[in-house]
Amino acid sequence: MTTEAFVGANRARILEDLSALLRIPSISADPARAADCRHAAEWVQNHLRRIGCPTAELHGSETHPVVVGAGPAVPGAPTVLVYGHYDVQPPDPIEEWETPPFEPNGRDGYLYARGATDDKGQFFAVLTACEAELRSGRGAPVNFRFLIEGGEEVGGAVLLDLVRDRPSLLDADIVVIADGPYYARGWPAAEVAVRGLCYVELTVRTLRADLHSGLYGGVAPNAHEVLVGILHSLKDRRGRIRIPDVYSTVRRPPQRERDGWRSLPFDLHAFTTEEVGATALIGDERRSVHERLWALPTLDIHGIGGGFTGEGVKTVIPAEARAKISLRLVPDQRAAAVLTALERRVRAEAPEFATVTLRPLILSDPVMVDTSHPAFRVLDKAFRSVVGRGISFTRSGGSLPILELLGREGAAVVMAGIGLPDDRLHAPNERIALDQFFDGIRVFARFFSELGQLQRRQSP
Amino acid sequence: MTTEAFVGANRARILEDLSALLRIPSISADPARAADCRHAAEWVQNHLRRIGCPTAELHGSETHPVVVGAGPAVPGAPTVLVYGHYDVQPPDPIEEWETPPFEPNGRDGYLYARGATDDKGQFFAVLTACEAELRSGRGAPVNFRFLIEGGEEVGGAVLLDLVRDRPSLLDADIVVIADGPYYARGWPAAEVAVRGLCYVELTVRTLRADLHSGLYGGVAPNAHEVLVGILHSLKDRRGRIRIPDVYSTVRRPPQRERDGWRSLPFDLHAFTTEEVGATALIGDERRSVHERLWALPTLDIHGIGGGFTGEGVKTVIPAEARAKISLRLVPDQRAAAVLTALERRVRAEAPEFATVTLRPLILSDPVMVDTSHPAFRVLDKAFRSVVGRGISFTRSGGSLPILELLGREGAAVVMAGIGLPDDRLHAPNERIALDQFFDGIRVFARFFSELGQLQRRQSP
Repeated sequence: MTTEAFVGANRARILEDLSALLRIPSISADPARAADCRHAAEWVQNHLRRIGCPTAELHGSETHPVVVGAGPAVPGAPTVLVYGHYDVQPPDPIEEWETPPFEPNGRDGYLYARGATDDKGQFFAVLTACEAELRSGRGAPVNFRFLIEGGEEVGGAVLLDLVRDRPSLLDADIVVIADGPYYARGWPAAEVAVRGLCYVELTVRTLRADLHSGLYGGVAPNAHEVLVGILHSLKDRRGRIRIPDVYSTVRRPPQRERDGWRSLPFDLHAFTTEEVGATALIGDERRSVHERLWALPTLDIHGIGGGFTGEGVKTVIPAEARAKISLRLVPDQRAAAVLTALERRVRAEAPEFATVTLRPLILSDPVMVDTSHPAFRVLDKAFRSVVGRGISFTRSGGSLPILELLGREGAAVVMAGIGLPDDRLHAPNERIALDQFFDGIRVFARFFSELGQLQRRQSP
Repeated sequence: MTTEAFVGANRARILEDLSALLRIPSISADPARAADCRHAAEWVQNHLRRIGCPTAELHGSETHPVVVGAGPAVPGAPTVLVYGHYDVQPPDPIEEWETPPFEPNGRDGYLYARGATDDKGQFFAVLTACEAELRSGRGAPVNFRFLIEGGEEVGGAVLLDLVRDRPSLLDADIVVIADGPYYARGWPAAEVAVRGLCYVELTVRTLRADLHSGLYGGVAPNAHEVLVGILHSLKDRRGRIRIPDVYSTVRRPPQRERDGWRSLPFDLHAFTTEEVGATALIGDERRSVHERLWALPTLDIHGIGGGFTGEGVKTVIPAEARAKISLRLVPDQRAAAVLTALERRVRAEAPEFATVTLRPLILSDPVMVDTSHPAFRVLDKAFRSVVGRGISFTRSGGSLPILELLGREGAAVVMAGIGLPDDRLHAPNERIALDQFFDGIRVFARFFSELGQLQRRQSP
């Protein structure tokens, strides 16, 4: 049976299955949803069995387990590891959803639900492509392996711990991650790098306890004032990070890669006003927006706490102030070295009367993927045949800690999403376009089928 | 019955009554506590009736009314207006309280509760002094009037509106305000000036909605970054306010007043480490600590909101950031002029891509009191007889908007608190020392008794 025949015969059932998965509110950030996360894991486990996987187990956590699966063994064929995550973001602000986030609703060619694109809809398309191959009558083209985690939205510690314990779970020739968008509608892309992350909480203490600004204002050191001074010192007006050596290890993308980015369709005005929702962009104007997003480090303040932030008026001198800040890192920066430099800079800026603490919350290194593996040619051909355009090599500005481990043993890591940039991931009215979803099934079925022609372990 | 006999016979009941008042969480800044504020007002109203006031009414607001009371008429005797406030500060950070803020707890000679010193405990001591006089068997020594408001901690608009409507409520020869500390244990003081206040909320907006720092970090303008830049620009490293003209109207206190301050006991090291709880003070070192606290303007950041401040990690670029900041003002600064200058400065500092809003929450001018009225000699004598030391003239670094009106008709405004500097007002574990509380009753009973000897309207 061809993929086309399979999709034609099973279209309604495929959408029913996806909807069943989307109905489970598997919000990993919400402890009250732990049972729902377990439920989603069991659903994926059962689905793997249904589509013909001899192995499908839950590991690493009772409440947010990793689904570990394997298809039928195909000696001599390459091993393809499919990564995905069944957990989703909280639906807040829930009042902005046009239909309830956990009641999948099809309209205008889209399926709307929390997780529709991030990542249930996408990994389910890849699983359905596997199913199409397993049911094709030609036998499995490759050795399928599956790692579907339930904690990607909260840092992925369960999966990281599991694969550190059992590194053999990562044994693969090719890793497939469908957890992102095309570059634009009609422009499929493979992301060849993710930025690293150095996420810290910075705490400043100046007083034993909060004081009244009427009684002590003018002599008592204010923790927010010190924090504001430190934070302001970390970046200049042009958005350049003022931490010594932070740029010294930054490797500029090769001219060829930058030329590729320049050939992508890009409307600066629409990007600024519609996508970003600002009146102007920040950053070094001598660098393209793509280079700023994908290949330069950045620093953001995520929030500042301490003191009085409630309704009304309180005239307090805060004893303590806290900020959550992070740097996104690019090749060849190292998160540990950046943390050290940041800490040194912060301490140098802090006045003697302030106690400053820096607590790292996430440290992950940037990762680049080797695109010389023949899998990328196969993927390009698959997209070309289904969508009419091959893949563009882009990068991601985001971070994916598991990626540091996934490619370590020489596997080719294929990050090729099937969503669209306006799928509203992490936002209200998240959705996936149905034509993108079914094209995704066709692309990956073809990709897997052709990978079966490759020799095992092409690259060491 | 002497005051001593009255206190001896009623000590337990007095503390029970005070505890009942302290148990009411009358937090004026919290809309959810409106019913509690009303409840506290009714409690004070009933208490005034219990101690023998023929008049006790609630005016100006359903939820945060002013308690307006009057004792028995004493023709020919002076009129003494007792001011106080039954509203309290929010208890945040609540986790730092050793016992719950609204469950009064006596230990080590102190009574611990939110409002113990600011101002329930203090005005209740004055009310109890009135009660002692009313129950002395000698008849009321003066015409008592009471204005106990419920919005002092949120700017006092209800009382201000009420007395603007009904200025006769302020008719008095002497105004008594017990809402502050001794200068030091054993050193009672009368404050002859309060600083004004220009309290604003500053809001910065840079984006339509929060964005993901992985997707947009490096090009999307961060509202916290802009806010931090503005806030940092408002003060230099020595604590000097960097707003043009803000110092041009500051009147330095006369040499005689500054000499008086120099004669007060002051241990810089103990003040810094024990009272302020810091390792160093800020401000212009060429000016004394007293001058910095009482006679120079200052600027404090009270809190910063917006973005992500919860547990864990969220990589958000905040679209909006808010700060609450205030300037304390000294003679002859004017709050309205300072607000204009602040707004001009903030707008000059904000980048074009940011929308900045400045919302004034409290504006009050600094006030100075005329100390030539004989009531100050009577007060000095009362403190001398009870505490063993007369009053020192100090100033307050704090602000009391109603003061602008209270002294306007020529009344002597006596601001003499009975708390101690380490009572932790506005902070966790607020308390009042029981010996101070009962001495306060004794002092004010004596003060009222001797005021009765004065002729009505000594000063025009």
